[in-house]
Amino acid sequence: MSASLQPGPAIATDRRPGPELRVRVGIVGATGYVGAELVRLLARHPFVEIVGLTARSRSNEPVGGTHPHLASTGLAIDAATPDDVDALFLALPHGTAAEIVPPVAAAGTTIVDLGPDFRLRNPADYPRWYGFDHPAPELLDDAVYGLPELHRPELEALRTTPRAIVGSPGCYPTTTLLALAPLARAGLIGDLVVDAKSGVSGAGRDPKPDTMFGEVNESVKAYGVGGHRHVAEIEQELAWLGASRAVDNPGAAGVDFLPHLIPMTRGILSACHVRPTRPVDQAELDALYAEAYDDEPFVTVVAAPPATKHVTGSNHVRVHVSADPRTGRVLAIGVLDNLVKGAAGQAVQAFNLVHGLPEAAGLEQLPLAP
Amino acid sequence: MSASLQPGPAIATDRRPGPELRVRVGIVGATGYVGAELVRLLARHPFVEIVGLTARSRSNEPVGGTHPHLASTGLAIDAATPDDVDALFLALPHGTAAEIVPPVAAAGTTIVDLGPDFRLRNPADYPRWYGFDHPAPELLDDAVYGLPELHRPELEALRTTPRAIVGSPGCYPTTTLLALAPLARAGLIGDLVVDAKSGVSGAGRDPKPDTMFGEVNESVKAYGVGGHRHVAEIEQELAWLGASRAVDNPGAAGVDFLPHLIPMTRGILSACHVRPTRPVDQAELDALYAEAYDDEPFVTVVAAPPATKHVTGSNHVRVHVSADPRTGRVLAIGVLDNLVKGAAGQAVQAFNLVHGLPEAAGLEQLPLAP
Amino acid sequence: MSASLQPGPAIATDRRPGPELRVRVGIVGATGYVGAELVRLLARHPFVEIVGLTARSRSNEPVGGTHPHLASTGLAIDAATPDDVDALFLALPHGTAAEIVPPVAAAGTTIVDLGPDFRLRNPADYPRWYGFDHPAPELLDDAVYGLPELHRPELEALRTTPRAIVGSPGCYPTTTLLALAPLARAGLIGDLVVDAKSGVSGAGRDPKPDTMFGEVNESVKAYGVGGHRHVAEIEQELAWLGASRAVDNPGAAGVDFLPHLIPMTRGILSACHVRPTRPVDQAELDALYAEAYDDEPFVTVVAAPPATKHVTGSNHVRVHVSADPRTGRVLAIGVLDNLVKGAAGQAVQAFNLVHGLPEAAGLEQLPLAP
Amino acid sequence: MSASLQPGPAIATDRRPGPELRVRVGIVGATGYVGAELVRLLARHPFVEIVGLTARSRSNEPVGGTHPHLASTGLAIDAATPDDVDALFLALPHGTAAEIVPPVAAAGTTIVDLGPDFRLRNPADYPRWYGFDHPAPELLDDAVYGLPELHRPELEALRTTPRAIVGSPGCYPTTTLLALAPLARAGLIGDLVVDAKSGVSGAGRDPKPDTMFGEVNESVKAYGVGGHRHVAEIEQELAWLGASRAVDNPGAAGVDFLPHLIPMTRGILSACHVRPTRPVDQAELDALYAEAYDDEPFVTVVAAPPATKHVTGSNHVRVHVSADPRTGRVLAIGVLDNLVKGAAGQAVQAFNLVHGLPEAAGLEQLPLAP
Repeated sequence: MSASLQPGPAIATDRRPGPELRVRVGIVGATGYVGAELVRLLARHPFVEIVGLTARSRSNEPVGGTHPHLASTGLAIDAATPDDVDALFLALPHGTAAEIVPPVAAAGTTIVDLGPDFRLRNPADYPRWYGFDHPAPELLDDAVYGLPELHRPELEALRTTPRAIVGSPGCYPTTTLLALAPLARAGLIGDLVVDAKSGVSGAGRDPKPDTMFGEVNESVKAYGVGGHRHVAEIEQELAWLGASRAVDNPGAAGVDFLPHLIPMTRGILSACHVRPTRPVDQAELDALYAEAYDDEPFVTVVAAPPATKHVTGSNHVRVHVSADPRTGRVLAIGVLDNLVKGAAGQAVQAFNLVHGLPEAAGLEQLPLAP
Repeated sequence: MSASLQPGPAIATDRRPGPELRVRVGIVGATGYVGAELVRLLARHPFVEIVGLTARSRSNEPVGGTHPHLASTGLAIDAATPDDVDALFLALPHGTAAEIVPPVAAAGTTIVDLGPDFRLRNPADYPRWYGFDHPAPELLDDAVYGLPELHRPELEALRTTPRAIVGSPGCYPTTTLLALAPLARAGLIGDLVVDAKSGVSGAGRDPKPDTMFGEVNESVKAYGVGGHRHVAEIEQELAWLGASRAVDNPGAAGVDFLPHLIPMTRGILSACHVRPTRPVDQAELDALYAEAYDDEPFVTVVAAPPATKHVTGSNHVRVHVSADPRTGRVLAIGVLDNLVKGAAGQAVQAFNLVHGLPEAAGLEQLPLAP
Repeated sequence: MSASLQPGPAIATDRRPGPELRVRVGIVGATGYVGAELVRLLARHPFVEIVGLTARSRSNEPVGGTHPHLASTGLAIDAATPDDVDALFLALPHGTAAEIVPPVAAAGTTIVDLGPDFRLRNPADYPRWYGFDHPAPELLDDAVYGLPELHRPELEALRTTPRAIVGSPGCYPTTTLLALAPLARAGLIGDLVVDAKSGVSGAGRDPKPDTMFGEVNESVKAYGVGGHRHVAEIEQELAWLGASRAVDNPGAAGVDFLPHLIPMTRGILSACHVRPTRPVDQAELDALYAEAYDDEPFVTVVAAPPATKHVTGSNHVRVHVSADPRTGRVLAIGVLDNLVKGAAGQAVQAFNLVHGLPEAAGLEQLPLAP
Repeated sequence: MSASLQPGPAIATDRRPGPELRVRVGIVGATGYVGAELVRLLARHPFVEIVGLTARSRSNEPVGGTHPHLASTGLAIDAATPDDVDALFLALPHGTAAEIVPPVAAAGTTIVDLGPDFRLRNPADYPRWYGFDHPAPELLDDAVYGLPELHRPELEALRTTPRAIVGSPGCYPTTTLLALAPLARAGLIGDLVVDAKSGVSGAGRDPKPDTMFGEVNESVKAYGVGGHRHVAEIEQELAWLGASRAVDNPGAAGVDFLPHLIPMTRGILSACHVRPTRPVDQAELDALYAEAYDDEPFVTVVAAPPATKHVTGSNHVRVHVSADPRTGRVLAIGVLDNLVKGAAGQAVQAFNLVHGLPEAAGLEQLPLAP
């Protein structure tokens, strides 16, 4: 709450707020769970003014009609995208953002896209994993993968670039990459199995048989067997971090990633089973993770296996790492709230960096437990 | 319900029921969840008469006082173990059954122990994994690991032995072994990660902070990091089945087994990530699993990832196996109800075999869904 | 399980099974939750053979495709209704059964309708509460309201009538009427508030926003404010039982009935707040309830407030009644499983009576807890 | 977040913060759920500094050991109560606060007691409802029932009194009284049934059989039959508001209040079934509720039955009222988060009033949904 805002030197394309200390933002795709979470956070952001909520077929309808818990904001949802904004948050189906972003980004509006359209560097990954040809592949090199703990300098650099596009990471990749980043950077990932568990809010707000209470409660199942789309991000970033396997031979032996749907609404846990490239002990692991995360505002390394409930509603991440002398393996676990650090909160965190705001602005809420 | 009972030739120690077609049984440890589940199943078993329920400090108290859903059975729980029984089911803390079994088994009473005291062949595993020295190690060679799909002949052979002791398997090992057995027998398990998820009834009926609703609901966490006790069973049986790693070098590179507590009451899912010893395709896997399970009354091989809800309340197991061409790995998943096929139902199934009864007697119930 | 079947004298329209001891049944509307529950129970019914499952647009599809937990039955769902059946169970939207029943019933096939089309005696109640004019009002006088605890003689009488139509009660009315029947018969209901709580399976299997896990879990809300349709049944039967208010002035001061949706799948609890017509004490209440229910196979009167979990998966009902000296009121509570005693189980119970079978046949399962 | 603090005239016992704009507070009973919720809110309160967390047998232990989600606050729990505080929040078992409050309050420290010890005006209610004789009955007249929507002037008046004791209301009374207050003030409550449903966090954090996940999930039950302790508060305040029945004849015909435990963690719904003293229509009800709540910062009157999920984690209350022409009754429903507006949030709201702070300070968070 005591974060100070230190204005830097004024330059032409500086995205920091002016003397009024408000960045004007719009949220496109406001009727889904991620859209609602963006409203929840941005409506209380000290340096933000929400000037528009957008969704198809809406005509200036009170947000409370769709999201009763947000009624007190007094905001409305409309089909028209506001044009006088400094930044746009996009929570849209894949392929949709890529169509509308180019002119908006060219005009200088900051783009924070919470879908996959600007997460992947390689245009060939879009037809492979998402089934569409990217309509603006030339933007992919400029876009920054919005995981601040991995790409903070690139995000900060967007403050003064003519075009600023953030591809905000998926929920599974965020959880997995934060659990693994120190190992990947140290070249310790020799073999990798990622077994993840998610609450059902990750499946979105449209009613489907698989997300009905009667089907979900008192049940668990795996899904996405043979390759969930989020594998693409995980492999891209692990390679970027230096993980030997993905770098050396990404096609032949990709990450074994298996997600599960469990009977809860929010939360992701990613258990990463690593066979290290060389023997490591707990002390070395502790040192690696301390170095990586001791100064991070939202990541805490914990000695006991963390529960998702310890971070619900917050932008916090809890990471656990342990060496198992019996098996010679390393276990790395990450937990977070898929709608906050896995989506809307992370997007706000990246937005703060792009606009020269305190990184934690609007994200100070403590987790809600029990 | 129409199972026929075909009596075999009469011999001295034949455990099959006489002309009255009733086996007299007692349940020791009747106040826990597993004890209750034994009552639920055995009270409706067509060839069984429950003659006693036992628990410490109880004095002929109606079972409905402890387990309201069982009140209609009219049974009572008492501190005294009935002595005129043909078979005893034991649902006791580890180390307890081993103390009381020797004389009872010597007297000819069938023992079906649902704890770990007679599951492990190697006496040294008890101090290592359970922290006690086994008081009757000479019985371990005779005891049969009560997983009918793996040890049916040995269980049937107990019908005419003077001493019959069944070490009924743990919930995690049952799920994991049934998912992996065809691969293990074929020598295909080159590297193995088992990532399992369980409902909280597996933690028993005593109130603990970790099993309170407020802590469990809307949360997930791993536990048993570094070696859950059930690893001992899994490694023993995989080695017996012929899995190369466990056989060749069981101490140096044990199974990486990680259990999770998820917000549900019943059910276990075990996801087994296998790096095969040689390339395999789906057709070969399908053939292996069909051969193993096509004639099994309780195991079904399914093409889509199974949900635990599909087996709740029943003795059914669902197994899925798939080859992943992208990663070269094999994924094997098993799901079951931890209190039925993972405990009481499996014990009844083994008991049926030992007593020459139809294997599915008392286990005909269909799953309860939704 | 030991229920004996005592054949009565043979008459022309006797609905009891012949020497083969099997009644041939069909289930129409087999894809919903109630249809599935009928399959679960009837597939294990000792005197029943399921000869057909019916649903629109299905072409001989294995039941496991729709209801994975029922795959082991080997049954299939088809669009065609089997015509060689002794009895048809109908689980259809309101207004649908009334269209198809007349010729089938006239041909002698027993009809057990689990929808509302044959529950109400007064044809005017259909347009009022359900929005359609009943197409066969002449059948309403013959149809029996299938609550065996209230209408056992009428159900048994259907055994030898040319036409046998059972209007199987709704889940809320069953719970409420069984809680209140002894008070109603004694003329003790002076003023009545019924506040009920149901699991979401009562809302059916079609995905709707209101039944998604993310909306239901960790939430509770009332619905049907101003008059849920089940009020019609409750008022009809209370009047029939002799409740003074409904008899004297049913239109002016109907039952105040308020249902709630709570985050569970199965189960209904109905709390009936009664201002008695004269002071009553606990001893009188106990005597009334003992007289009503001591000989009932499925109803148990309990001293402590019952939990729905104590009856899950079974046809059991638990009823509690208490006098409150402080307020002068009487509280009557009923709990049951909405899909069993509130739907499929009750239908089977009535079917058994109509066909001269043991009343509990196929309904012997104990509740599943925890 | 932009709430302005407008200092009033300085007087001797003014409880408003000085120029440093921080009120120094302590929380006694910090290990329970309510204590944790106080930390969650007060740690982010813009005008508060937490100077001490207290619980028995704790020796300066990090709060994260007990409440992992609060670890980032860096606070510790100790057995010693801090003595240099401006205000103490007490979250203690009944009877405990009454023992320790007198000297602390006499010394000028603001007391906000979240237990029942200062809620009831009549000392005789303590032995009757709570089983203890109040040790300081002379303080009961001074203490203010801390429901700001009913007692805002009295709370504000505490700002300049030598002694300031707030008896913060119970969760059920808050929900019920806010639903009923406009009817009570208008003398419209002729007969009253309150049927309430609560999440299990209201039962506290100590493990008990009744709050285990296996017992709670997929179940519902009533409890407190014959008189929950919260009846005392409800009757006291309804009488104070002018409800005819409670005023005229409080002993003979008390409120019929029945609570239920439902499978959720947070949230209370109170359904109040009212037979009005005279006929009322919807328009009159709407006008009464608009007058009562249009200016209230935390109470919203809604046309559709509200869900508890719409207020989770926030200090919001949603109230619904409807006239039922069919029955002549009025239904009033209130929902809130039992740990926020039902406990910690309400305590902070009252504290703000006593200390001359903006009423919503520290309570600006929007609800967390889904």
